[in-house]
Amino acid sequence: MSVTLTELVARFGGELVGDGSVRVKQVAPLDRAEPDEIGFVAQSKYLAQLGATRAGALILPPDARDASDRPRILTPNPYLYFARVSALLNPVSRPPAGVHPAATVADGAIVAADACIGPGAVIGARARIGARTVIGAHCVIGEDVLIGEDCLLNASVTVYHRCVIGDRAILHAGSVIGADGFGFAPSEGAWEKIPQIGRVRIGDDVEIGACTTIDRGALEDTVIEDGVKLDNLIQVAHNVVIGAHTAIAACTGIAGSVKIGRHCTIGGAAMLSGHIEIADGTRISTNTLITKSLSRPGTYTSVMPFSEHEMWQRNAVHVRNLDKLVTRIQALEKKLGELEKK
Amino acid sequence: MSVTLTELVARFGGELVGDGSVRVKQVAPLDRAEPDEIGFVAQSKYLAQLGATRAGALILPPDARDASDRPRILTPNPYLYFARVSALLNPVSRPPAGVHPAATVADGAIVAADACIGPGAVIGARARIGARTVIGAHCVIGEDVLIGEDCLLNASVTVYHRCVIGDRAILHAGSVIGADGFGFAPSEGAWEKIPQIGRVRIGDDVEIGACTTIDRGALEDTVIEDGVKLDNLIQVAHNVVIGAHTAIAACTGIAGSVKIGRHCTIGGAAMLSGHIEIADGTRISTNTLITKSLSRPGTYTSVMPFSEHEMWQRNAVHVRNLDKLVTRIQALEKKLGELEKK
Amino acid sequence: MSVTLTELVARFGGELVGDGSVRVKQVAPLDRAEPDEIGFVAQSKYLAQLGATRAGALILPPDARDASDRPRILTPNPYLYFARVSALLNPVSRPPAGVHPAATVADGAIVAADACIGPGAVIGARARIGARTVIGAHCVIGEDVLIGEDCLLNASVTVYHRCVIGDRAILHAGSVIGADGFGFAPSEGAWEKIPQIGRVRIGDDVEIGACTTIDRGALEDTVIEDGVKLDNLIQVAHNVVIGAHTAIAACTGIAGSVKIGRHCTIGGAAMLSGHIEIADGTRISTNTLITKSLSRPGTYTSVMPFSEHEMWQRNAVHVRNLDKLVTRIQALEKKLGELEKK
Repeated sequence: MSVTLTELVARFGGELVGDGSVRVKQVAPLDRAEPDEIGFVAQSKYLAQLGATRAGALILPPDARDASDRPRILTPNPYLYFARVSALLNPVSRPPAGVHPAATVADGAIVAADACIGPGAVIGARARIGARTVIGAHCVIGEDVLIGEDCLLNASVTVYHRCVIGDRAILHAGSVIGADGFGFAPSEGAWEKIPQIGRVRIGDDVEIGACTTIDRGALEDTVIEDGVKLDNLIQVAHNVVIGAHTAIAACTGIAGSVKIGRHCTIGGAAMLSGHIEIADGTRISTNTLITKSLSRPGTYTSVMPFSEHEMWQRNAVHVRNLDKLVTRIQALEKKLGELEKK
Repeated sequence: MSVTLTELVARFGGELVGDGSVRVKQVAPLDRAEPDEIGFVAQSKYLAQLGATRAGALILPPDARDASDRPRILTPNPYLYFARVSALLNPVSRPPAGVHPAATVADGAIVAADACIGPGAVIGARARIGARTVIGAHCVIGEDVLIGEDCLLNASVTVYHRCVIGDRAILHAGSVIGADGFGFAPSEGAWEKIPQIGRVRIGDDVEIGACTTIDRGALEDTVIEDGVKLDNLIQVAHNVVIGAHTAIAACTGIAGSVKIGRHCTIGGAAMLSGHIEIADGTRISTNTLITKSLSRPGTYTSVMPFSEHEMWQRNAVHVRNLDKLVTRIQALEKKLGELEKK
Repeated sequence: MSVTLTELVARFGGELVGDGSVRVKQVAPLDRAEPDEIGFVAQSKYLAQLGATRAGALILPPDARDASDRPRILTPNPYLYFARVSALLNPVSRPPAGVHPAATVADGAIVAADACIGPGAVIGARARIGARTVIGAHCVIGEDVLIGEDCLLNASVTVYHRCVIGDRAILHAGSVIGADGFGFAPSEGAWEKIPQIGRVRIGDDVEIGACTTIDRGALEDTVIEDGVKLDNLIQVAHNVVIGAHTAIAACTGIAGSVKIGRHCTIGGAAMLSGHIEIADGTRISTNTLITKSLSRPGTYTSVMPFSEHEMWQRNAVHVRNLDKLVTRIQALEKKLGELEKK
């Protein structure tokens, strides 16, 4: 597959400078691009990389119009433009429609005629699978699950009974939607299970990474709103609400009943304590534990800075004695004040 | 399904106040309960929520006898009572007994007649599956595995060869029991694998979350005692012992040969260094790294407090210089002492 | 199966002291070894454990020649020797060669005649599976995947299209190779997916733990070099390169485009920020966040020391006020200087 720059501009906009008949068949990083590939520079500070590139065409910001004499497309957001060109040149391959003979579809499940149910997939009673949705090999879709249109569930995804997934969702292999939340009542030294009778409701245009787990609610639902993007190995506990278009990096854990606003970004291995609320637009740094509600957007961090181990040892011991240290400073301040009076 | 308050009291105890013929069909949070639902208040501080509720009945602590005039059950532990009512009203649905035609059961495996083996499940040679146990779709049960009675293995659980699971266990989708422990001997710059010949032994009444991994022992067994509850995405390394009725929240990692006592609670994303022992009844906070044995129960914490990023930057740099800071304080103390002598 | 000490020395070297006709059938820890088992002491400090052992034979360092009068093998690296004896006595059981009738192999896939494709395994079009490789139950191998010889993929491993795995790899249950990297371009408050068109390339002799996820590259490949060992529940983001013979413990996260050198060891639950480089031979401690490139090998740590919760509370508050504390110390130093001048 290939496309001319003129065709790209007709489809995605931008200003063409140079020969529009130049044809590209792939996107590539500048330092490895071939003459039949298109590269991009997102920010002016990377323009120096243009010198050595062999790319046959470029996507540049408008103020870099003269940074190269190659055929180029000027656009205010080269990264987004590049993403769209890449999506055009790398269409997702869909398996043929229909139910694989090695799949198991329960009586009463409703599968769209143009959906694709892969080998080994199991579709429970009364589940509905929408138009053009792909259910990958060995996915297990529980009873009464609703999955919308144009979704892609990769291999071995599990969706427990009664959960709901909107349109255009992408779920990666091994993700688990709707397992029981972690709820137990203490009883004479043991734990008694509290039935988790809520569901997981996932909106449209959500992507969920490999081995990410989203638990069903205890009484009410766990909710993932439209456009949320979750990376791999994330834990979302019961009754969490994640607001629309929030993106969360891998290894993060979100405890029960947390309400995260819209348009937040949360770094990898962050951890959110239970029952707190995070304002729209908040940014949380990698490895940061948030223990209280954040009512104002901003960037929040709790990271112990790293150092060479020996230096860390010398400093870390004092962390344990900070309170005593402060007492010593107070004593010094008092004594010095007395001395100054004399 | 529905039940009268009189029936509930007959079954679970407690004191009935008001009309025992009132019928409830579901548990619900106070603010969303309907007249045919029952709500609860666990602690007196939440009694204010009673005012607006539409719940048809309530579960209350004895000292809240007069906090409402609705039909109510008084019990010293409303949360536990509520859990039991919910379990009654929301029975776990069991698929019909028998081996699904799309399952693969090896010759010599022994499956109880009333067990349920789901589509795609694979049962290895000489494995035993106990009475009324449900093996979900695509579970893979290795050779010589023993699984007790009344267990529920959800979809795509893997149990490696020779592992042992007691009665009434619940394993969630994607959990992996008995993969090789991480053991390698260094050899001329490379790593040579140490066979992991122990097993995983899991007691009765254990629940294991989605995508949680419990490795088999190197020489001896990894042991999960009765009543242990593990949340999602937890790593339990080889030769760990987790004492009875200990509960561990998601994303926690437990390194090799750790011995955790009974009745401990461990917060999410905690981490325990290898070869340490944790006393019975210990509580470990979220995100806390424990590097040494804890011989006394108590609550232990190691969390860097979060703040806005700019404030964090100003403070964090000093953590790296605490040792120098202490030296400066010592110098001040010495000089001041000398001045005071004059 | 059993073996004499003479046979062990003939095969693995070392110096035999005592009766070489003694036969052992298993390795065991000293305190539980039976007379037909062999134990080992890796370091002189553990020699005291020899007194009570019932082991029929021992593997000892040369300087412990006289620490026991039992039949023994002296070798400079007892731990490695023990690993090799264990591997001899505990051979990995391979299922019989061939494609299980419940597997699904696409037309055009090339499976070696002596490979083993387990029940439910799915092999995509044009994939190649090398000689003697075992593909476990319910593994899903995408289109155009290449897997070398003598590999062992345990149950429910997913390998996405076009990924490459070398010889002698061991992948544990639930691991996911080649899911999409986490790449999105912001567009008017939403996220637009950037196609992830790179692959994952895995070298020879690599072991990958249960539920570990390795994402495919955005444009170029994610690369795991020869001899790398990854524990369970590790996240490797797109475009990461992990150098040969590096070992990484469980729950660690490696952000995008990180380049880790050869022969590094990384503790559990470490986290590496994106786009940094780590020098060959670097050691990173458990729970440590590395935010900058490390150009010199060494051991690096960033851990907040734990303490009892009350003590932690007293100290942690001061971490948030370190900058003010330093200002107070500066004021003291200035005032004291002025006093001293008088």
